[in-house]
Amino acid sequence: MTRPRYDFASDNTAPAAPEAIDALLAANQGFMASYGDDEVSARAADLIRGLLDADAEIRFVASGTAANAIALAALCRPFEAVLSHGHSHVATDETGAPGFFGHGLGITALEGASGRIAPEALDRALAAHDSAHHQSPAALSLTNATEYGTVYSDDRLAALTARARGAGLKIHLDGARLANAMAAGCDARLLARAGVDILVVGGTKAGMTPAEALVIFDNALVRRFDARLKQSGQLPSKSRFYAAPFVGMLETGAFLRRAAHANAMARKLASLSPFKTVHPVEANGVFVEMDGAAHKRLLGKGWQVYRFLDGTVRFMCSWATTEEAVEALGADLKAIA
Amino acid sequence: MTRPRYDFASDNTAPAAPEAIDALLAANQGFMASYGDDEVSARAADLIRGLLDADAEIRFVASGTAANAIALAALCRPFEAVLSHGHSHVATDETGAPGFFGHGLGITALEGASGRIAPEALDRALAAHDSAHHQSPAALSLTNATEYGTVYSDDRLAALTARARGAGLKIHLDGARLANAMAAGCDARLLARAGVDILVVGGTKAGMTPAEALVIFDNALVRRFDARLKQSGQLPSKSRFYAAPFVGMLETGAFLRRAAHANAMARKLASLSPFKTVHPVEANGVFVEMDGAAHKRLLGKGWQVYRFLDGTVRFMCSWATTEEAVEALGADLKAIA
Amino acid sequence: MTRPRYDFASDNTAPAAPEAIDALLAANQGFMASYGDDEVSARAADLIRGLLDADAEIRFVASGTAANAIALAALCRPFEAVLSHGHSHVATDETGAPGFFGHGLGITALEGASGRIAPEALDRALAAHDSAHHQSPAALSLTNATEYGTVYSDDRLAALTARARGAGLKIHLDGARLANAMAAGCDARLLARAGVDILVVGGTKAGMTPAEALVIFDNALVRRFDARLKQSGQLPSKSRFYAAPFVGMLETGAFLRRAAHANAMARKLASLSPFKTVHPVEANGVFVEMDGAAHKRLLGKGWQVYRFLDGTVRFMCSWATTEEAVEALGADLKAIA
Amino acid sequence: MTRPRYDFASDNTAPAAPEAIDALLAANQGFMASYGDDEVSARAADLIRGLLDADAEIRFVASGTAANAIALAALCRPFEAVLSHGHSHVATDETGAPGFFGHGLGITALEGASGRIAPEALDRALAAHDSAHHQSPAALSLTNATEYGTVYSDDRLAALTARARGAGLKIHLDGARLANAMAAGCDARLLARAGVDILVVGGTKAGMTPAEALVIFDNALVRRFDARLKQSGQLPSKSRFYAAPFVGMLETGAFLRRAAHANAMARKLASLSPFKTVHPVEANGVFVEMDGAAHKRLLGKGWQVYRFLDGTVRFMCSWATTEEAVEALGADLKAIA
Repeated sequence: MTRPRYDFASDNTAPAAPEAIDALLAANQGFMASYGDDEVSARAADLIRGLLDADAEIRFVASGTAANAIALAALCRPFEAVLSHGHSHVATDETGAPGFFGHGLGITALEGASGRIAPEALDRALAAHDSAHHQSPAALSLTNATEYGTVYSDDRLAALTARARGAGLKIHLDGARLANAMAAGCDARLLARAGVDILVVGGTKAGMTPAEALVIFDNALVRRFDARLKQSGQLPSKSRFYAAPFVGMLETGAFLRRAAHANAMARKLASLSPFKTVHPVEANGVFVEMDGAAHKRLLGKGWQVYRFLDGTVRFMCSWATTEEAVEALGADLKAIA
Repeated sequence: MTRPRYDFASDNTAPAAPEAIDALLAANQGFMASYGDDEVSARAADLIRGLLDADAEIRFVASGTAANAIALAALCRPFEAVLSHGHSHVATDETGAPGFFGHGLGITALEGASGRIAPEALDRALAAHDSAHHQSPAALSLTNATEYGTVYSDDRLAALTARARGAGLKIHLDGARLANAMAAGCDARLLARAGVDILVVGGTKAGMTPAEALVIFDNALVRRFDARLKQSGQLPSKSRFYAAPFVGMLETGAFLRRAAHANAMARKLASLSPFKTVHPVEANGVFVEMDGAAHKRLLGKGWQVYRFLDGTVRFMCSWATTEEAVEALGADLKAIA
Repeated sequence: MTRPRYDFASDNTAPAAPEAIDALLAANQGFMASYGDDEVSARAADLIRGLLDADAEIRFVASGTAANAIALAALCRPFEAVLSHGHSHVATDETGAPGFFGHGLGITALEGASGRIAPEALDRALAAHDSAHHQSPAALSLTNATEYGTVYSDDRLAALTARARGAGLKIHLDGARLANAMAAGCDARLLARAGVDILVVGGTKAGMTPAEALVIFDNALVRRFDARLKQSGQLPSKSRFYAAPFVGMLETGAFLRRAAHANAMARKLASLSPFKTVHPVEANGVFVEMDGAAHKRLLGKGWQVYRFLDGTVRFMCSWATTEEAVEALGADLKAIA
Repeated sequence: MTRPRYDFASDNTAPAAPEAIDALLAANQGFMASYGDDEVSARAADLIRGLLDADAEIRFVASGTAANAIALAALCRPFEAVLSHGHSHVATDETGAPGFFGHGLGITALEGASGRIAPEALDRALAAHDSAHHQSPAALSLTNATEYGTVYSDDRLAALTARARGAGLKIHLDGARLANAMAAGCDARLLARAGVDILVVGGTKAGMTPAEALVIFDNALVRRFDARLKQSGQLPSKSRFYAAPFVGMLETGAFLRRAAHANAMARKLASLSPFKTVHPVEANGVFVEMDGAAHKRLLGKGWQVYRFLDGTVRFMCSWATTEEAVEALGADLKAIA
């Protein structure tokens, strides 16, 4: 039997990059304050503020799902709703975590091609009249890079946040793949100016050991945020281990460099694929039209890849994806096409 | 100014032990399935089953607070209560996480000397009549080693669980310091036989990078437990990193050996302390009577230690505590007494 | 300006029927036990058991929204989902109450013409593979009469519950308009046999002062249900006032007789309407195609009626709807058509 | 066997007063807007604003437990706590409803004789340092009249609210027995000036059919409050029936007059009781020292009365308590003493 290969199953099947590991080992020295009061967390926070060119509060947590859900719970009351793309991670791939952490808050699904919210879909949602009988919107949740490997242009993202803020909504940005978006041209320094209230910067998919950064731009949200995290099981005691990989990846520039590699691997894979690419390949994912029989043949060759919500088959690249693997997969795709 | 020393502030101020780090590095190779389907998680689960001599389901998560809260939410409905010691971690040091994850479940505080629940306190709680107007007990939560550095004898623990199970309650055991309890004589193989339904085995305080194991003895709880974890933000994608330190610590025997060292350091510290030790020193904590002025003098010497719920000052030892540090602290304690 | 008329805005704009009021006055005598332990509640429960020919536990509560949400929370855990029609009351008209009472439980919308779930939509949902990354179904929620004034035939309802139960799901039935369904031929004695676990029998829309009955067929759900109700704010102290209208309406036969009148008024209205009726008029609602201009003219004549989720304009009849009102509305409809 | 008498079991065992019933019957005419948009609700709100001499938003709901819990959820986030008397209704007699509606919010118990919070207990709680590891206070919950039949003087209540507001807390007042407090001298017009943010005015115990008024003094809380109520199952459709009894009781002056009667009955009972009265009899409750044997003899005579949290036996009077009943009970008390 062919040994299963997880190279393209997700960007979380990869190990951690050397820069993350080196920093983790460096942080593993001596006793330190816990719960975020350590020097490693302070250093990592400074580096993220530099990356974002913003004076934000930063917290390091273990889980992107939890980070998103905690953020939405901070922005939206239980009897209100979050507007998000219908195929966003918070809407479809977190087992209802926003409603769990947000005590029943609603998610209103918006449409838009290739994972990007269509401005007119947002407009329609904002125009709906406020009624006591349904959950009216309190926040807009964006994802960049999107679930379909596309990237919002700075202008398009700013236009969406401007509309939402004009209607009184708060803004959450799921940046599980912000590194990939930045490597594709997204200027992260504009996020604060665009009025994002809470940003989650993904470390895990960017090549770290498990680590995510919660960036709180809105100062009004900071009070007792650590209590919120603690109650949510996301105030790590040995906090240095969640901050260290950010130090390593940001100090060395690996955060962007590794993401650029992942994006390049996706482009290369798309160029080799005989199957039609459905969404623009702007970040580190390739989504192709593939019927069930072909998918089965591909699985038979050991490649573990999954059918996605839109019916396409998804291939994810990461910092660890090799040219050789892409070429091997490309050859197998040609063989099974 | 004296540089602050965190050696005795908590057992989570320590770095990770070499055995944990080595296993983490060994696990950081190549692509692997995520969300617990990797071979490292399988290996770690086998090792824990061996340790406990039980055929349980095991999950690896990031947070002990979350693990406890998820366990209690699985055992107790919102309109019911968990019986726990009044100074237990779940009752006093988790910012209400059980009520958050458990949607308002109640915690009924029981008394008992030095962190151990008194049998008669449990009996009184179990004898209370069931009323629709308050939250009646559905689960008993025990902690071993306790918050006060004591350890339940196997008999005493079994007697408590027998009473609770006789009244129809489920059993949760917070084993954040189970290693220390085991090093002090607790036979973990008896936990399954005593009817514990969910056990949390602490890795973080035992010398690992952040990692906790959720052990589900009660097979009826297993269905959709991964969905429960995912919704709670505790189904790690790069799961290997939460399982690996358990592999390293258990395969090498460091889990118990390191805990035995921590316990020994606590005993040594107690022997050097001129301040009265309030609770039996059975695990890795020393709790002493110390007035505010003395505490201030001690802080002035750089030792970061905290006053605990019962008014004592707490010193925690860990795998990383050195004889030299204990002696230096002992000397300073004499100086400020 | 025309005085607004609420006759057809909803079946909750009507006063209470004389039979309900008479019983309420009769119950308003002397001191009685509270919280459901009174003789009025006992009598009303007996009458409902007779109506349903089933040995169920009955509780009387104030709110249908709460009753539904409490029922769903009893049948479905937070990381699971309820299957319901996409336009059901629980899905669209309760401001997310099921997710609030159910701590984030999900609702999966099923399709089906005129408010009735299509069997193939249910089959598709039941066939979906169980994953930790989304909320898998634990319960089926049905509504009879439906939101669109249609009524499930006994066979169709039994077929749906049989499929759902075969897949391990629990069954909730929202009977806010069960009286109307029964007056249209639904045999309520079959509900227990069809495996409904919890039924909400609507009193409010049936012509009572605010009152709903929660019928618990599944004996395993009964333990501590009063504590569940109390915590949810639905264990009324002066319980007699929620039970009394059921006594009055059921003892006199008004429950069905009044509903039959409401249904007849709807049929009469449909027969007079020059606007196309979109859904079969089987219960007490009439849904017509009407453009915005016509709707505005109708509002101008004082008739307060609303556009519904499917784009139709809805007219609801009740026990209090008079022939004269129907004829007056019919005439105005002709005038504005 | 002696027929049980519920006259003194609680003030919710009484029927509704004629003034409430008359208004309810008067409101039971014709079609009306629902969900609080009816003229009866508007009239009742005006009357309450008059009573309180304040420009507040008023909503009418079915349940005092729900009203309190909804209020606390509006004032306190899940990772924060409400300060209340340790024997308050929200703390001990609502099955954890505040934590259920408030998603795990904590309740910190304060001491104080006879149900009134001691100023120094409040001061200690306010002086506790804010930590991420426990739930810090966000709101103060007061009860007037208290659970022990005492009444805060206007000055004492204002002193407590001033301290709490000075520390940034919001204020909730549980006025389930506000009528009794007012009849005992409480000036309800001072509540707004004392900075109460949300007040629950009890109708049920004041002699109405089930009805409570939520009074929102803090304008910042009003936005989407109806959505909050709807999601919580407390936005009644046939709202007139919850407003009408307030109209009847307030227009006629019965609200205060009936409460004054209840208070007088309590005083009379205290004067007849051979058992020691433990708390000052300022409102409608009498709490006496009575051993188990005497209590059993009393129950044997048919009087259903309960032992309370503080170990006393409680007798509650209501609008419906008759002089004859008090005398009969007094005679029986003498007989069993």
